[in-house]
Amino acid sequence: MMKKLLLASTSTIYGSGYLEYLMPTLETFFNGVKNLLFVPYARPSGISYGAYTKIVSEAFKKIDINVVGIHTFSDKNKAVENADGIFVGGGNTFVLVNELYDQDLMEVLKNTIVKGTPYLGTSAGSNIAGLTMQTTNDMPIVYPPSYNTLGGIPLNINAHYLDSDPTSKHKGETRETRIKEFHIYNKIPVIGLREGSWLQVDGDEVVLKGDLAARWFVKDKEPIEIEINHLIVI
Amino acid sequence: MMKKLLLASTSTIYGSGYLEYLMPTLETFFNGVKNLLFVPYARPSGISYGAYTKIVSEAFKKIDINVVGIHTFSDKNKAVENADGIFVGGGNTFVLVNELYDQDLMEVLKNTIVKGTPYLGTSAGSNIAGLTMQTTNDMPIVYPPSYNTLGGIPLNINAHYLDSDPTSKHKGETRETRIKEFHIYNKIPVIGLREGSWLQVDGDEVVLKGDLAARWFVKDKEPIEIEINHLIVI
Repeated sequence: MMKKLLLASTSTIYGSGYLEYLMPTLETFFNGVKNLLFVPYARPSGISYGAYTKIVSEAFKKIDINVVGIHTFSDKNKAVENADGIFVGGGNTFVLVNELYDQDLMEVLKNTIVKGTPYLGTSAGSNIAGLTMQTTNDMPIVYPPSYNTLGGIPLNINAHYLDSDPTSKHKGETRETRIKEFHIYNKIPVIGLREGSWLQVDGDEVVLKGDLAARWFVKDKEPIEIEINHLIVI
Repeated sequence: MMKKLLLASTSTIYGSGYLEYLMPTLETFFNGVKNLLFVPYARPSGISYGAYTKIVSEAFKKIDINVVGIHTFSDKNKAVENADGIFVGGGNTFVLVNELYDQDLMEVLKNTIVKGTPYLGTSAGSNIAGLTMQTTNDMPIVYPPSYNTLGGIPLNINAHYLDSDPTSKHKGETRETRIKEFHIYNKIPVIGLREGSWLQVDGDEVVLKGDLAARWFVKDKEPIEIEINHLIVI
């Protein structure tokens, strides 16, 4: 079996419902999947696991996929191993990573991805598919035991990538500045995924999909634009 | 002696030079200070300690204060203890905190603040004057051994505070959402300091100064606006 990942910048684009823009793609991606295991640990706005799972469940009803929250299983390791497909939703990346370590799920998730179980990530769920969570935009509201993540792809993702506004009077760092600072201390390449774009991973092939070009950052080089349908070579 | 802190949201406001808007205030704040100890560890854009110290040195020449970088001392603990005044500059908060722990300087800085040595912080340098660095906007580009910081004030700061743009089509979290998520897991009150504003601390008194109101976040309450010259009661 080959790795099969779909890593989206965001779950929701402006003026559209939850996962709506992705549904046609997900119908193909999750072809044959009856039960989808959902990981609600990133808790956007502190929402409960149950409430978050309900939102996801509603969205997947449209393509006849049944969603079950990982929090409902007593043996969560087994739930991951046996899943037809896995979806890790967005929220706070620190909270998500902390909980995955706390529940001892990082290793089994990693192995399950390698085994070929289809994995969907949005936002924080996409961040953790990279080598480390160190290009998250989130606040460190909890202290995870490590920043290392699944390494399903040999790069890091910056979700919700935002271009600098040349008319801005704000003096906080731009996203580009932050990622360049990451490269003072780290060598991992980073892809800035604009909202509405995603990475489609088949085995070792990583391809940019969606509506918008992405920004590609390599240590000691000027960032460049990557076009849609472009194969990303590390 | 009483605690004496000046904690600014930013070093630089739009259309003005480095620290320029603060200089009249700093002349009074650092009255009697001949040698200012500068901590360049936050390294904005990865700038070297020497280059960063030079920028700060140029700015303080205008008010006849001599600036010395902490990196030039062999005994950095003693340098902090003997300083007339201390300035911790902005940059990446994770890098700053990591280096302060690495050099074993967190404790001596804390004691020196309590002793009454005047402390100036901008951006990351202001963040670390709070109880924890967990309301930083920065990327976790290095992994510090702890998020606990100086606790010079019994609250946390969010520097470069940005109001949500109601016309935005971006689906990333707003600053307000991020701070509310912090309060799902933490009880520490948070002040969102807009650029051009600062906190002036005299002993136990914390007063908002500058041009703009600040945003005040308390766990389980709706955030409110705090006006300039307002005494902040925890």
